[in-house]
Amino acid sequence: MEDLWASLDRTQGVGRGIEHILRRAIRAGTLGLDAVLPSSRALAHELGVARGTVSAAYEQLAAEGYLTIRQGAPVRVGWTPGRNTPSAAPRAPDRPRFDLRPGLPSGSSFPRTLWARASRLVLAHAPDEAFGYGDPQGQLPLRTALAGYLARARGVEAGPDDVLVCGGFTQALRLACQVLVARGGRTVVVEDPCSERYPALIESAGLRVASVRCDRDGLCVDELPPADAVLVTPAHQYPLGVSLSPARRSALVAWARATGALIVEDDYDGEFRYDRQPVGALQQLDPDRVLYTGTASKTLAPGLRLGWLSLPTSLRRELIEAKENVDRSAGVLDQLTLAALLDSGGFDRHVRRMRVTYRKRRAALLRTLGGLDVRIEGIAAGLHALVHLPQGGPTERDVLDRAVARGMALGGLSDYLRKPAEEQAIIVGYGTPPEHAYRPAMAELAKVLSL
Amino acid sequence: MEDLWASLDRTQGVGRGIEHILRRAIRAGTLGLDAVLPSSRALAHELGVARGTVSAAYEQLAAEGYLTIRQGAPVRVGWTPGRNTPSAAPRAPDRPRFDLRPGLPSGSSFPRTLWARASRLVLAHAPDEAFGYGDPQGQLPLRTALAGYLARARGVEAGPDDVLVCGGFTQALRLACQVLVARGGRTVVVEDPCSERYPALIESAGLRVASVRCDRDGLCVDELPPADAVLVTPAHQYPLGVSLSPARRSALVAWARATGALIVEDDYDGEFRYDRQPVGALQQLDPDRVLYTGTASKTLAPGLRLGWLSLPTSLRRELIEAKENVDRSAGVLDQLTLAALLDSGGFDRHVRRMRVTYRKRRAALLRTLGGLDVRIEGIAAGLHALVHLPQGGPTERDVLDRAVARGMALGGLSDYLRKPAEEQAIIVGYGTPPEHAYRPAMAELAKVLSL
Repeated sequence: MEDLWASLDRTQGVGRGIEHILRRAIRAGTLGLDAVLPSSRALAHELGVARGTVSAAYEQLAAEGYLTIRQGAPVRVGWTPGRNTPSAAPRAPDRPRFDLRPGLPSGSSFPRTLWARASRLVLAHAPDEAFGYGDPQGQLPLRTALAGYLARARGVEAGPDDVLVCGGFTQALRLACQVLVARGGRTVVVEDPCSERYPALIESAGLRVASVRCDRDGLCVDELPPADAVLVTPAHQYPLGVSLSPARRSALVAWARATGALIVEDDYDGEFRYDRQPVGALQQLDPDRVLYTGTASKTLAPGLRLGWLSLPTSLRRELIEAKENVDRSAGVLDQLTLAALLDSGGFDRHVRRMRVTYRKRRAALLRTLGGLDVRIEGIAAGLHALVHLPQGGPTERDVLDRAVARGMALGGLSDYLRKPAEEQAIIVGYGTPPEHAYRPAMAELAKVLSL
Repeated sequence: MEDLWASLDRTQGVGRGIEHILRRAIRAGTLGLDAVLPSSRALAHELGVARGTVSAAYEQLAAEGYLTIRQGAPVRVGWTPGRNTPSAAPRAPDRPRFDLRPGLPSGSSFPRTLWARASRLVLAHAPDEAFGYGDPQGQLPLRTALAGYLARARGVEAGPDDVLVCGGFTQALRLACQVLVARGGRTVVVEDPCSERYPALIESAGLRVASVRCDRDGLCVDELPPADAVLVTPAHQYPLGVSLSPARRSALVAWARATGALIVEDDYDGEFRYDRQPVGALQQLDPDRVLYTGTASKTLAPGLRLGWLSLPTSLRRELIEAKENVDRSAGVLDQLTLAALLDSGGFDRHVRRMRVTYRKRRAALLRTLGGLDVRIEGIAAGLHALVHLPQGGPTERDVLDRAVARGMALGGLSDYLRKPAEEQAIIVGYGTPPEHAYRPAMAELAKVLSL
């Protein structure tokens, strides 16, 4: 036992030091189940501390289940790691040296200090009620801040009462699907190509998925089959990178009005447009027909799991009720922190900074591809670009294999297509690499594409 | 315009001050849509600052959508509050002077400083990957810490790979229901009485609800009808306050084994037992048959929306997939913060402190009720007590009405009963009032009950 105390750290208080050493020894199995500990008097004497200090440490560990204290009996170890020992962390799957897959923002750019400061203020000043069950629709300060932000930045027509805060786009889509199912809906149309996750998400909610192709003007609206809803990415088609043309926007809304279908607008990266002011949300053309969804996943971090949707009047009650039934509300502290960032202008400043970063990265990508026999499709926006490969040249599969061999991960168009096509194209996500790795990644990409 | 600048606050930097004043004026409508702003040169001269400072402020506001900047044209206001003005916060519903409804912990006891400190460490030290999409099952550091904690504190048999982190108990139940439905399940049994929310939650997932009465030994297991699952509160029946007897525990597990049904264990307040070590989780009797659910809602705060469940081997894959389909994962930052609190012992210390607080409150409640003609049911545990009213005395309705008239909110047993009963009882939640208001609340309760 004596050796155990050699590492006693007295800087945090001796009591804490004792707890720490015993906890570690019990977890490690050094002190096995039922091992007898010295009496508090004996240990206090040995360490030269007050007996109460040792007793309090023992009591804390008993409360945690590590020790068993019984009147008139020695203190014993009451827990053993056994099969519940935290196993060693599983090895992370081999990460590519250069990760240029689409869909992720730069993890290294999360505004840690900004978020920490806002979060500290929230924790210091939030009323006690904020820690109780939150409003299922979302915290009012966040809904208010979001309504203002969405009006300014995306032209969304929604007051604080028309916004619902949810767990990212995935949950927004899930809630919309649940409400459609409850109303007897059967079919949702997705764009072809689209995110490879969406069809499975829709099907998991009990709906059938149909798809309609996209061309350079976005979704081919006049090919829409009868459906209960259509899921679109009007600002920046994913992954083609085109935007839905003005004529198609009107036609889509007209179709929805004529058929009674719902439009779900996935505005996943609408904040990032580099050549002009972003095109406003489709939602403003008909707030009662278009369910707008936005997310903090691209502007801040996917790990926050914060998203929002606009509530069409006719679905308002059902969507809020659905949210309440799946998890009662989004986490309150993160909501209030985001509200504080929106109110202070810190969010806008961060987005502006990231816009500059991503614009430069896109420009560097274009320079890299400039001398090669490839064609970039889509507008100057977002965090990815679609790169068409020349006819008769290497196939998508060739390029992806060559990339993997060089430690690089890319996206391939065929993973996003619902119906196979002749077109050979890769998708380059320029958001993910940390800043210092971006230039080397471009040099490597040039090699992958120029063979 | 001149007056606008009188309030310019130069302490945060003149540029921020300019932004702040303009943002406020535009939001308030003082500067209307299309209003022309002074040139950056003119304003810089007027305020005695560098022209670049003003330009940068204008650019920030343009990025936020408040201003429109066009080459060769004056800077104009580009946004108007219109219908998107954040409306005044709706008036909070009248809160009772004394809130003794069950189901909430003390909001004033949330360990703000502890949480803030852990959160700051997480933000400072988390790897960049932590901000990306998280593991649908939950962050490994939290699952590891939870597995250890649940083994120690609740006797749960689950390693880090057998735990799933979710959005509170509500989402745990939702996920379980979804998986049951996908397997063709139809019926879930609830305890009678039970939380008034649960039957609706189960039905909203597409399942039928049956119920079985509880007596002083908890759920009457031998009255269970055929069912796909049963939802129980073995440690502390809600709201009766009894615990499931050892014989009934064995019988329940035997029933589940014999019928193939799933047991969902709702361990909502298992940390709070005042007279002895808490009874361990039912789950340890058969980890493959019992889906254990726990929550931070009572130990920390409901607003965190953090809960967890144990994964029976046969449902493991489906439950994780269901979580991924509803919202991809719980918020990563809150998960890592809770993991840090568990690892440092801060969580256990907080729970121990709250156990003392609630034990004292329960004792004060017993003293208050001691001289009255009522009978308390249930074990010394949790955050509420069931108080039976004497036969022939005032009814539950009488007491609740009398309480409301005195500005006090209480629970009534009939709200929790599935089948009407003769029994007249109220439920007193002693978690909610802030510390300073508890003694007056007890005095008032005595008046309400002694008339």
